[in-house]
Amino acid sequence: MKLHWSPRSPFVRKVMLSAHELGLADRIERVRTLAAMSQPNAALMRDNPLSKIPTLVLDDGTVIYDSVVICEYLDGIAGGHRLFPADFKRRIDAARRHALGNGFLDLLVLRRNERDRPDGARSEPHLEAFATKTEATLAALEREADSFAAKPFDIGHVAIGCGLAYFDFRFTTDAWRPAHPRLAAWHDTFSARPSAIATKFVDG
Amino acid sequence: MKLHWSPRSPFVRKVMLSAHELGLADRIERVRTLAAMSQPNAALMRDNPLSKIPTLVLDDGTVIYDSVVICEYLDGIAGGHRLFPADFKRRIDAARRHALGNGFLDLLVLRRNERDRPDGARSEPHLEAFATKTEATLAALEREADSFAAKPFDIGHVAIGCGLAYFDFRFTTDAWRPAHPRLAAWHDTFSARPSAIATKFVDG
Repeated sequence: MKLHWSPRSPFVRKVMLSAHELGLADRIERVRTLAAMSQPNAALMRDNPLSKIPTLVLDDGTVIYDSVVICEYLDGIAGGHRLFPADFKRRIDAARRHALGNGFLDLLVLRRNERDRPDGARSEPHLEAFATKTEATLAALEREADSFAAKPFDIGHVAIGCGLAYFDFRFTTDAWRPAHPRLAAWHDTFSARPSAIATKFVDG
Repeated sequence: MKLHWSPRSPFVRKVMLSAHELGLADRIERVRTLAAMSQPNAALMRDNPLSKIPTLVLDDGTVIYDSVVICEYLDGIAGGHRLFPADFKRRIDAARRHALGNGFLDLLVLRRNERDRPDGARSEPHLEAFATKTEATLAALEREADSFAAKPFDIGHVAIGCGLAYFDFRFTTDAWRPAHPRLAAWHDTFSARPSAIATKFVDG
């Protein structure tokens, strides 16, 4: 199978980190694909009209997106219920943390896009709102860090771990660790996993 | 259960439309909640730090988001596998169409936010990119309209139907129907469902 891929996309990293956890990384052919918000990629749009990565193309031509669906697909072909719990209540809990990690990433991507606009085209109300939501998300994650740290590793951990790693990668001056010690301690254990080490962001 | 709700949010509509399909609408207490991208809502953020709707709060205090997870939760408590197919291949196919509808909505929300910025703060490259992706998404939906129209109604139909309805609601001058006749015909059948009629967008 072929994955539209980038070493800097946090949503791609979620997929590749899951693939490593599931023992599937060797089966994925990575195709370097550029997908910037303001630059539609015509080749990518033949597989995904939204022009977003990750987008997975199976050998029979079936296309799968977004990252949430690709992760669930990989979990399924790896036997099922490894990163997505089978029990309904646990499944919804993992999915909610997955959505929290994804929402944090959506927020950071928008915040970075706004920050990097040319002078004059930048909206201060948006930048302030994004900063407020970032703080609130970090505070919420700190409050529940001990709870999710105690749970078996699942797709929620993948998403929150990649979210914090992306925050470190793109907001290098925001020192979140001192004010969020439990979350920082959990993230250290996440970052030490072979799957996280194998999928580190590459700047460029 | 309590739902942070708005009559103008397409993601909320997806949840309420699903609730109507599943016979659960009467069990949901709707709480009118404002959630604009540039205006964090402190009350909402106590339940969801991302300040986004829909956010569902169960009677025992458990909080569930985003719309994808709430829809799956509602499907589960309604007996399961009604809007989310049980069979793996069909489930992934429905989830991919769900992601396509959601991605279309994300795109339209960003496009509307950009369009409505004050003069000078508007980015023409972003507006052009959003228009290009909108066209590509409509073209892709037209290509697969006959295929998904033939499938039993599932969460993918909910998302694509709400996506097109939101496009009509917020981009009133974009006449997409003449160039996409199969998609338009399918959307007529969607709009005639009691669940769609009960959840129509309300302007204000």
